Amino acid sequence: MTGVDETVAHAAIKALIRTIPDYPKPGILFRDVTTLLSDGPGFRAAIDALVEPHRGARIAKIAAIEARGFIVGGAMADRLGAGFVPLRKRGKLPHTVVGVDYELEYGVDRVEVHADAIEAGDRILVVDDLIATGGTALAAIALIEQLGGVVCGVAAIIDLPDLGGSDRIRALGHEVHALCAFAGD
Amino acid sequence: MTGVDETVAHAAIKALIRTIPDYPKPGILFRDVTTLLSDGPGFRAAIDALVEPHRGARIAKIAAIEARGFIVGGAMADRLGAGFVPLRKRGKLPHTVVGVDYELEYGVDRVEVHADAIEAGDRILVVDDLIATGGTALAAIALIEQLGGVVCGVAAIIDLPDLGGSDRIRALGHEVHALCAFAGD
Repeated sequence: MTGVDETVAHAAIKALIRTIPDYPKPGILFRDVTTLLSDGPGFRAAIDALVEPHRGARIAKIAAIEARGFIVGGAMADRLGAGFVPLRKRGKLPHTVVGVDYELEYGVDRVEVHADAIEAGDRILVVDDLIATGGTALAAIALIEQLGGVVCGVAAIIDLPDLGGSDRIRALGHEVHALCAFAGD
Repeated sequence: MTGVDETVAHAAIKALIRTIPDYPKPGILFRDVTTLLSDGPGFRAAIDALVEPHRGARIAKIAAIEARGFIVGGAMADRLGAGFVPLRKRGKLPHTVVGVDYELEYGVDRVEVHADAIEAGDRILVVDDLIATGGTALAAIALIEQLGGVVCGVAAIIDLPDLGGSDRIRALGHEVHALCAFAGD
C-alpha cells in the first residue's frame, strides 16, 4: 500500500511537475511543483484529487505547512468548508504560539502554531506540497495533538518514499495521501 | 471611491480579523487575518467576496505574494480555474527567475518570479492578504509587466488606506479590491 493512487488523472498531474537536477545542491533532483500550480486545469485537477479522500470526513481545519503547503491548503480548506491554520517557521506568527523543534539533516528547525487556532476535538488534516523525511509533518502532528486536535491524515502532492517520511507517518497510525511518488532515482 | 464594499458580509469578515496591539513593535496595531482564516464559514465568505469582482474576467493566473497571499491566492485560483504563480522572496524559487528590488521603511527587499511562469498576454490578478504602503504589490506589478503579463488588478483581504498603497496602485491605472479597510487609528 503506497497511498499513491496512480490513475490517469494522477499521471497527468505528475507529468506537470518539473524536475530540476542538482538543486539545491549537486546530486539532488528537485521536484518543482510550480509548473503544476501555474497550469489552471492541472492545479484544479490536483485539488480535486487532494480533497477526494476527505469528502465526508468532517474536517474542521486544514493545518498547512509554510510556504508551498499554504497554496494547496488554502484551496483545500475552501473546497471542504474547513478553516485554515498556518503552521509557520519560528517567529512568524503574531499571537501566542506553541512550537516544536525537529531535526534536519544538519541542524534543527522549528514549527509553530497559534495556541488558540486549534480546539480540543477539532478534526485536522495536515497539508504540505511534498513529503520527504517527514520531519516537518511529524512535528506538525505532535503540535496538533498537543493542542487536543485529532489528526485525520496527511495530504501532499508528492511523496518521496525512498526518504521514509510517509512510512514514518503511517507507523504512527495516520493515513497519508499523496498524488504521486518519485522513487528509485 | 475606496474600493472597499462595506456590505454585511464584508462587515462580518472584518469582525473576524484580530487586532494585536504593539506588534511587531510598540505603537503598531497588527491586523491578524489568521482568526478569519481559521473560521471555516468566514474563510469561505472571504474567498466568495474576493473572487466576485473577477468572475468572467478570464483571469489566466493568480500571482500571489509570499506567504499569507498564498493561502487566499490558492483558493482564488481554484475558484477561478486559473493557474497559480508564487511571487517569492529572494532565493526561494528553484528555476530561472526575474526579480525586482523595492524599498522598505528601512532597507531593501526583493520579490522574484520564475521567468517562464507568465507568458506574454497572460491576464494576471495580483493577490496578497494586506495592502499597506503597496511596495510589494507595485514590485509584483512591475515584474509581471516585465514578462509581458497583463495586470487585471490587485485583490487583498485588508487595505490600510492611511499608508497610501492602494492609492499608489490605482494611480497606475490598476483596480484594487479589498474586503475591508482599517483607517484612522
